[in-house]
Amino acid sequence: MADKITSRSEDYSQWYIDLVRSAKLADYADVKGCMVIRPNGYAIWEKMQAALDRMFKETGHVNAYFPLFIPESFIAKEAEHIEGFAPECAVVTHGGGQELAEKLYVRPTSETIIWSSYKKWIQSYRDLPLLINQWANVVRWEMRTRLFLRTTEFLWQEGHTAHATHEEAQEEVLRMINVYKTFAEEYMALPVILGKKSDSEKFAGALETFCIEAMMQDGKALQAGTSHDLGQNFAKAFDCKFQTHEKTLEYVWATSWGVSTRLIGALIMAHSDDRGLVLPPRLATRQVVIIPILKGDKESVLHHADNIAAALTKAGISAFVDSSEQNSPGWKFAEYELQGIPLRLELGPRDIKNGMCVVARRDTLEKTEIALDDRLVMSINEILNDIQQDMFDAALRFRQERTVQVNNYDDFKVAVEKGFVIAHWDGTVETEAKIKEETKATIRVLPQEDDYCDTYGINEPGTCIYSGKPSARKVVFAKAY
Amino acid sequence: MADKITSRSEDYSQWYIDLVRSAKLADYADVKGCMVIRPNGYAIWEKMQAALDRMFKETGHVNAYFPLFIPESFIAKEAEHIEGFAPECAVVTHGGGQELAEKLYVRPTSETIIWSSYKKWIQSYRDLPLLINQWANVVRWEMRTRLFLRTTEFLWQEGHTAHATHEEAQEEVLRMINVYKTFAEEYMALPVILGKKSDSEKFAGALETFCIEAMMQDGKALQAGTSHDLGQNFAKAFDCKFQTHEKTLEYVWATSWGVSTRLIGALIMAHSDDRGLVLPPRLATRQVVIIPILKGDKESVLHHADNIAAALTKAGISAFVDSSEQNSPGWKFAEYELQGIPLRLELGPRDIKNGMCVVARRDTLEKTEIALDDRLVMSINEILNDIQQDMFDAALRFRQERTVQVNNYDDFKVAVEKGFVIAHWDGTVETEAKIKEETKATIRVLPQEDDYCDTYGINEPGTCIYSGKPSARKVVFAKAY
Repeated sequence: MADKITSRSEDYSQWYIDLVRSAKLADYADVKGCMVIRPNGYAIWEKMQAALDRMFKETGHVNAYFPLFIPESFIAKEAEHIEGFAPECAVVTHGGGQELAEKLYVRPTSETIIWSSYKKWIQSYRDLPLLINQWANVVRWEMRTRLFLRTTEFLWQEGHTAHATHEEAQEEVLRMINVYKTFAEEYMALPVILGKKSDSEKFAGALETFCIEAMMQDGKALQAGTSHDLGQNFAKAFDCKFQTHEKTLEYVWATSWGVSTRLIGALIMAHSDDRGLVLPPRLATRQVVIIPILKGDKESVLHHADNIAAALTKAGISAFVDSSEQNSPGWKFAEYELQGIPLRLELGPRDIKNGMCVVARRDTLEKTEIALDDRLVMSINEILNDIQQDMFDAALRFRQERTVQVNNYDDFKVAVEKGFVIAHWDGTVETEAKIKEETKATIRVLPQEDDYCDTYGINEPGTCIYSGKPSARKVVFAKAY
Repeated sequence: MADKITSRSEDYSQWYIDLVRSAKLADYADVKGCMVIRPNGYAIWEKMQAALDRMFKETGHVNAYFPLFIPESFIAKEAEHIEGFAPECAVVTHGGGQELAEKLYVRPTSETIIWSSYKKWIQSYRDLPLLINQWANVVRWEMRTRLFLRTTEFLWQEGHTAHATHEEAQEEVLRMINVYKTFAEEYMALPVILGKKSDSEKFAGALETFCIEAMMQDGKALQAGTSHDLGQNFAKAFDCKFQTHEKTLEYVWATSWGVSTRLIGALIMAHSDDRGLVLPPRLATRQVVIIPILKGDKESVLHHADNIAAALTKAGISAFVDSSEQNSPGWKFAEYELQGIPLRLELGPRDIKNGMCVVARRDTLEKTEIALDDRLVMSINEILNDIQQDMFDAALRFRQERTVQVNNYDDFKVAVEKGFVIAHWDGTVETEAKIKEETKATIRVLPQEDDYCDTYGINEPGTCIYSGKPSARKVVFAKAY
């Protein structure tokens, strides 16, 4: 049962750690910087994987698996790439009892090892496009860790595609960042801003990085997915050319895109409360818990509870009965609130007699009575759909309330402590670096979608809040995880 | 399209390599000892994972994820374990640009890192049993590699369970080796012998190892899954005790069990032929290929082909049409035979007119005519079921034909070049070692199932074929992958 969870208002960081550990989602491992993803946490990842994997396959991708180890010379082939990743790698120097002739890096990302294979597989335009995804673990050394959000090892998927033209690669980059947006919004109930990264925030080795950014309950940003236009950088590094339809030789165009177990952290921080986890129904392995109130005719209550669970299961709703007698109903209420089961159904002898029962929503904690008749399954299905939609709406409202536009740096410094700040930027790396140094806020995203841009006048020219120089557009600043 | 595949009779090892590469199942990576699992190969693994994962969950297990890195001191905690695994580990000595204070081993298996968590999670009998599985990559240094069968890195699942009593742990060990047997026989169409390993072949750190052993087409054995009774060895190494119902403190009992991407190698070597891969329908991502013969009224042929594919898909049979005009039907026949699609349906204008079409089974290469009417889906479903069953029957017949019983060492040496040899053994490590040294054959399994034991008189006492000493039972010897 739950240890006490610190409240969000008291200490948001501690609340997060308490929640993750009380709900048994993850645990620090006895290896510096690493985590154990416990069954309750891994179940969320499995739901995420299933939905994403289906979406990847529907967009024509297949899965494969490439080696964990990358020879040092491979990482070194793309200049920006080695500069970005080498300092944070784990390095294998011995294998099978021998010192190795060449050091092996544990993959921090797989562009180089994958393009060394693509070079062998791609000869002609007939071999393109190549649309491959990999589910894997990656390692990036971290000194200051936070469960799910920043750990030395984490799980992710990385898509790596090869194309005959830049245009086609660019379409792929946008297609996949939109898949991520759909997933975030429709499954995670998490509204995101889709756009580009500034040059200093983009992937090491990319021409351009697209991202989706979400707001957490403390107003900070969390990058929830990225999709990179790699141009011909990796094809050139690995000398990967193809024969075009016109018999000329050209370098292949590349993209890569990924999301990770960070998303579990995002899910928790966006929706959960002081009682514990709040899960959107579409990512809950168990959607409905039925708690029988075991007074009077226990047999009859259990029989009814089992029947309801069976009817829900048959309708594709994941339901279970907790009929254990060692714990009280009150204990169970608290336990399943902690675990984030979206809906609780309470069923006692009186409810059965009256033909009504109480259901309690996890997201709003609201209780309502529903009829124990033929419409029960439909009613519960509707409530689950409402929860999914309401969680999204609440998160969107919260983001809107915590988003402000400012016209000067003093206002900026105050506002950026509370949420997203939309402000004019002169487009220079220098200004970006100064603002980061002075406020710890970074440019999260250059929004690209009409709706968002229109709402906040993103593409109106103006004056940079820091330098006073002309600015072609506004950008979104925030502190970030 | 296929490079030429060496025939099995000419060179079985080369046939295997040619097939794996021509069918694009896997490729050697540019990292010593490692492989790339290509999309065609990974699709088989995904089908295997889906079936096994469902079976694990049906037997009460949940998934989790533990760190890739294991501190050297952890591996050292169980004496037999470190002796068995340390020499074949990859070792990380540097991370984040610094030399590490303690070396990290890349997991060769996860007993130690998992039991360091179990110690924290288990206090009372109420916390037991703990039934956890992990899907992960593991690394065991290999000098001589063979795609899927022996590579430095491979993918697997490892179940790790904790129990209050030895009896319960032993039940789990048997439950899971039986899950593997069911999977091998019903999905892979691969008959297996279930039994125990001899002491010298058991897992480093186990009291007892159960296994399933299968015969490949060259008569060699392949271990297709293991399940270990770990006793209290790891609980003692990590000081993991629990309070019993009677308030006493006891060490926890452990099991572990696993199968790996080796199974893909087993699948290939058990069933495939000189034309390429032969896949059992239950592990084929694509079960039926429809090849339209594009003569005369092409539109009509394509329309019919699409309708058949749609009807099959609706019935849960995975079917697709290859309507490309750049390749001839003959080229397509060869290509999909290489890829192991279980059933090919050929459809031309004349077939449509006559209301009949030809289907060709991949396993037997047999062609039959079936009616293009309401019974089509049912007919195809029946043929797929027949293929699944016939592949199992053929493999079983082959194993029976290649299994001989011998009563003396001269006969043994001849027989063991061809297949499984059932012979009396005096039960000593010395005899086992001598036979291995002289013939390269090992004791694959001490069979445990009544059917098999009765057929071969396994439990009849006799005289050891090597030492002439008394023998309590016969065992199965073979050369092995």
